[in-house]
Amino acid sequence: MPLTRRIKITLSYDGTHYAGWQVQKGQSHVKTIQGTLQQALSLITQEPQTIIGAGRTDAGVHAQAQVFHFDTNSRIPPQRFPPALNSILPQDIRCHHGELVNKDFHAQFSAREKTYRYTLDNGPVAHVFTRDFAHHIPYHLDLRSMKKAGTQFIGTQDFTSFCAAGSSVKTFERTIKELEIQEEQPWIYVNITGDGFLYNMIRIIVGTLIEIGRGKISPEEIGTIIGGKDRGLAGPTAPAKGLCLKRIKY
Amino acid sequence: MPLTRRIKITLSYDGTHYAGWQVQKGQSHVKTIQGTLQQALSLITQEPQTIIGAGRTDAGVHAQAQVFHFDTNSRIPPQRFPPALNSILPQDIRCHHGELVNKDFHAQFSAREKTYRYTLDNGPVAHVFTRDFAHHIPYHLDLRSMKKAGTQFIGTQDFTSFCAAGSSVKTFERTIKELEIQEEQPWIYVNITGDGFLYNMIRIIVGTLIEIGRGKISPEEIGTIIGGKDRGLAGPTAPAKGLCLKRIKY
Repeated sequence: MPLTRRIKITLSYDGTHYAGWQVQKGQSHVKTIQGTLQQALSLITQEPQTIIGAGRTDAGVHAQAQVFHFDTNSRIPPQRFPPALNSILPQDIRCHHGELVNKDFHAQFSAREKTYRYTLDNGPVAHVFTRDFAHHIPYHLDLRSMKKAGTQFIGTQDFTSFCAAGSSVKTFERTIKELEIQEEQPWIYVNITGDGFLYNMIRIIVGTLIEIGRGKISPEEIGTIIGGKDRGLAGPTAPAKGLCLKRIKY
Repeated sequence: MPLTRRIKITLSYDGTHYAGWQVQKGQSHVKTIQGTLQQALSLITQEPQTIIGAGRTDAGVHAQAQVFHFDTNSRIPPQRFPPALNSILPQDIRCHHGELVNKDFHAQFSAREKTYRYTLDNGPVAHVFTRDFAHHIPYHLDLRSMKKAGTQFIGTQDFTSFCAAGSSVKTFERTIKELEIQEEQPWIYVNITGDGFLYNMIRIIVGTLIEIGRGKISPEEIGTIIGGKDRGLAGPTAPAKGLCLKRIKY
């Protein structure tokens, strides 16, 4: 009987032309990152493959260092998987690193910390090179207010107000370890690190920070918005294309 | 009789999906930057339009600040042209600035200095976000040798060896004012400023610098290659997608 091994792969992708990470049941015609990877892996290993991703990114969301794992009987050395996959995959998905992991490693459940970056393009006209990777806001944004508001997200809190309505989760409590706002004209980066995030949580946080930057919500209101535990209190959900899964720590 | 005015427009574009700047005679089905702009301008001004660009970028070459001029009887204020054009143009072409210029201004002939940037991606795997804007080289490049070679291009010299064969120009003499190589991992930028460039000149210079970085040509050979006035002596032409017209001074 062959020895089944668990392999961990780190990859990046431009999510623009995909309906998100997750394979949609009964919708094999919909192009997803997971589906594209499974097809390529099946071809390489000559086995049917189901992969488990660390984060199920939405349609249009990008990744710089997404992680997935899969089990295989193939004898291909782990570090050979990325070049083999890259030779089959489309150019907008690239695998970087492959390693053998213990059977108790789980790409999603073993993750201790995730960092996302949201990119705003605050130039007067959208930069053509980042039009798929940044949300363009041609209005003045008050960075000082945004930074002041940003600090209030840090800590272990109930983030119901920053979770897409209708989510069924055990608890709305999450820990944000870091929230940093950097300017590199014309771009503004919002880097958020946490132990995990609710559905659309980062995009709603960013949508709220934009409202603060435009003076529609004051930084002092963040406490009230979090405390209210009501999605209706926070700002709109910022568009998917500005979001990028940047790093996962295990 | 209406007063004809000359308007100067500054624009940027992602050249990936265009067959270059210039309209190709009898090939109206081929999508070009110039053709796309002329169509949009004709719609706005209700006049047939022919525009003159500062640089006729090749297929796949990008621009951060290309310039063109056109003449019009339209009474639209010059600064209204960029937003009007942007509302019609595809997202990969964006106009930034519009101004009234004298009739003796000519986008191509009045240009005193042009700066191009060539982007190399020197990471082990191509970065998905810049796959259309950078030439990926997964091998070690000796930056010190490249920089040493780079300085030898500076000055007024006969660049026959760095001009695509078959070009018909009056003189192969051009002046390179600056050639700077910057590293910002995983990217390496080659910024070149000159009074004007021969056909494919920058891409051949970069192709030669790559050969130097890989140790196939020594930096000391540049003098001989320039002196030889023979295209066969220089390195290959680097791919179009890494090239970007960055700035034009008048």
